[in-house]
Amino acid sequence: MTRLLQFAAGLAFAAALTLPAIVRASEPDDVIEYRKNIMKTLGAQAAALNATLQGKAPAESFTLHAQVLAIAASEALIAFTPKVEGGDSKPEVWAKWDDFSKKMKEFAANTADLAKTAEAGGAAAAQPKMQGALTCKGCHDTYRQPLKK
Amino acid sequence: MTRLLQFAAGLAFAAALTLPAIVRASEPDDVIEYRKNIMKTLGAQAAALNATLQGKAPAESFTLHAQVLAIAASEALIAFTPKVEGGDSKPEVWAKWDDFSKKMKEFAANTADLAKTAEAGGAAAAQPKMQGALTCKGCHDTYRQPLKK
Repeated sequence: MTRLLQFAAGLAFAAALTLPAIVRASEPDDVIEYRKNIMKTLGAQAAALNATLQGKAPAESFTLHAQVLAIAASEALIAFTPKVEGGDSKPEVWAKWDDFSKKMKEFAANTADLAKTAEAGGAAAAQPKMQGALTCKGCHDTYRQPLKK
Repeated sequence: MTRLLQFAAGLAFAAALTLPAIVRASEPDDVIEYRKNIMKTLGAQAAALNATLQGKAPAESFTLHAQVLAIAASEALIAFTPKVEGGDSKPEVWAKWDDFSKKMKEFAANTADLAKTAEAGGAAAAQPKMQGALTCKGCHDTYRQPLKK
């Protein structure tokens, strides 16, 4: 697991470096749809992870959800790197890129640690790290457009 | 990666064995919402994987998407094990459980192989295995309610 996550992090970093050249060829709508798919993954897996703790889903799946969250968090930093405003993102994502990308990197590192802890010790060991890892709201409050009600 | 996937497969198997006792405590709506979150993950990551091949997203992320698909496929078998009809599932899921679960296990095994191949040789090596791994439509045609248009 550790090796996988190191691999994922390395890949994410390498991709972020080479990204602008690649994504310049993509249409803005493609870039937005792509990052929406990553955020959809994160939302679905965070909900599934919570369900395992609430007795609404098998407790044994906690680790699988944590592993997906860790990899999808790596995907997210890559997906937001091209400066394409729109979708559910506020312009602040790119206006405050240093802060946004720092938060995204922390998110990837913390979910990787969550997954590693869950793999070694199960949900009981990992649960105390959840609040520090799943900082969805803190980031959404600043960087996501308010959801339509 | 291989160790992770072996771990994921072992966990999925163990969870499937112990699942009925756990999920009996869940409300039917919880079971349906949970499996919808897994299928949402699979749909979003399959779309993202395709985007990397179509030049709509960074090619380097192919492997990350394949890894998520492999883990989420393991989650899916667990999520459908409790016989709770409804949501987007046809009753055939449980009426033909032997066939459905066989297809789900193949899906998990084939996406695990896809991820392993991508990790070793990148998208170019893994691409020939995509059609055999991402059998979404074949299964949806039989087991998913038609989508509303």
